[in-house]
Amino acid sequence: MAAGWFYLSCLALGSLGSLCILFTIYWMQYWRGGFAWDSSIFMFNWHPVLMVTGMVVLYGAASLVYRLPQSWVGPRLPWKLLHAALHLTAFILTVLGLVAVFNFHNHEHISNLYSLHSWLGITTVFLFACQWFLGFAVFLLPWASLWLRSLLKPIHVFFGASILSLAIASVISGINEKLFFSLKNVTKPYSSLPSEAVFANSTGMLVVAFGLLVLYILLASSWKRPDPRILTDRQPLLHDGE
Amino acid sequence: MAAGWFYLSCLALGSLGSLCILFTIYWMQYWRGGFAWDSSIFMFNWHPVLMVTGMVVLYGAASLVYRLPQSWVGPRLPWKLLHAALHLTAFILTVLGLVAVFNFHNHEHISNLYSLHSWLGITTVFLFACQWFLGFAVFLLPWASLWLRSLLKPIHVFFGASILSLAIASVISGINEKLFFSLKNVTKPYSSLPSEAVFANSTGMLVVAFGLLVLYILLASSWKRPDPRILTDRQPLLHDGE
Repeated sequence: MAAGWFYLSCLALGSLGSLCILFTIYWMQYWRGGFAWDSSIFMFNWHPVLMVTGMVVLYGAASLVYRLPQSWVGPRLPWKLLHAALHLTAFILTVLGLVAVFNFHNHEHISNLYSLHSWLGITTVFLFACQWFLGFAVFLLPWASLWLRSLLKPIHVFFGASILSLAIASVISGINEKLFFSLKNVTKPYSSLPSEAVFANSTGMLVVAFGLLVLYILLASSWKRPDPRILTDRQPLLHDGE
Repeated sequence: MAAGWFYLSCLALGSLGSLCILFTIYWMQYWRGGFAWDSSIFMFNWHPVLMVTGMVVLYGAASLVYRLPQSWVGPRLPWKLLHAALHLTAFILTVLGLVAVFNFHNHEHISNLYSLHSWLGITTVFLFACQWFLGFAVFLLPWASLWLRSLLKPIHVFFGASILSLAIASVISGINEKLFFSLKNVTKPYSSLPSEAVFANSTGMLVVAFGLLVLYILLASSWKRPDPRILTDRQPLLHDGE
């Protein structure tokens, strides 16, 4: 029964995450002219797609690796490597998303990093980088003591969830800002809720729903690995023969 | 030692929360012309102040009532009543914050509820209302069974934290949107980072720091009531003589 609910939640999560990415691509393709990698506004259009894909959907999926019942038994190293590799992929997409917006701004002589969206966004990416390197150094490399690992694990989990929450706040403020930019000086401004505005607002609400479902499975559900002290939770893994 | 850290965190929380409110008041007073309750733009200025005060700072403080060591011993009813009363006060301030913006919009013939900020904000307030009434009905009134209470408690805690996260995302998108509105067609636009922009962006980052500290104390710290099953956690309280 519990396993049934878990896989139903995974199905909902996969569907919501796919919809988040597809909606963002469709918004940029249908209303904003599509994509290019040439420092133009069409390069900017990669920014929302890469941020939603990397910093929200892939990040969320990577966070939940240890909730898969398959990860509870047998060697843990492959799951740790998967967790780290998925997060690294998410981080690379995120950095490409930053390149897209910085290149566009520089090409068009638009200031960088002035809006609260950008302040929060860049802080989130910085925290993500720190979290990844600290996670790699402490939980994947073999030097850290059990004491240090057990001390840092709740902090790692807390910042993992916090960074996702900050990413969602960044995405919401970013979609809001983009719609105010794009839907001014037009026949149907943002305030008249043209179809683009309804669609992009809905994309933002989907991102929120996806984020809440990830956080629920991560923090509040009973789908956690049972009794971690009996299993190999806090053992150094790169030199324990797994 | 643990108690020392807890009270240090409370001090940091009180200072951060006060700064969030004072910064928002100062922003509205110094750069946006101050306050009135007359459907003008000066009535709108109550909106950010009431939302930050009610939906973030007071809500955050109300969430942490059960982390006070004093609440772990003796009768629980006074703490439940305090938790509910503080949240009700937070909710009333939030509704007044909505009245401020709706009155201003209606008076100036500006559309309501079109931006993603407003969609997320109104969803957050709706979830807050549901959460309060469900909490009141299940955890304060005496009819609910122990089974129902223990089933709903983790959901109540999860949605409590989620609503705060959504409130922070709403505040961030709201400050961002307000600065784009206020700092256009002026000598120093938002993109040139005038002092108002730096100040209001910093206010947003303070709100984020406050929210993260609340969530840390709420979810990740070890400052939870020890062994709730031994104490009176899941007993109906309005008729148990406390």
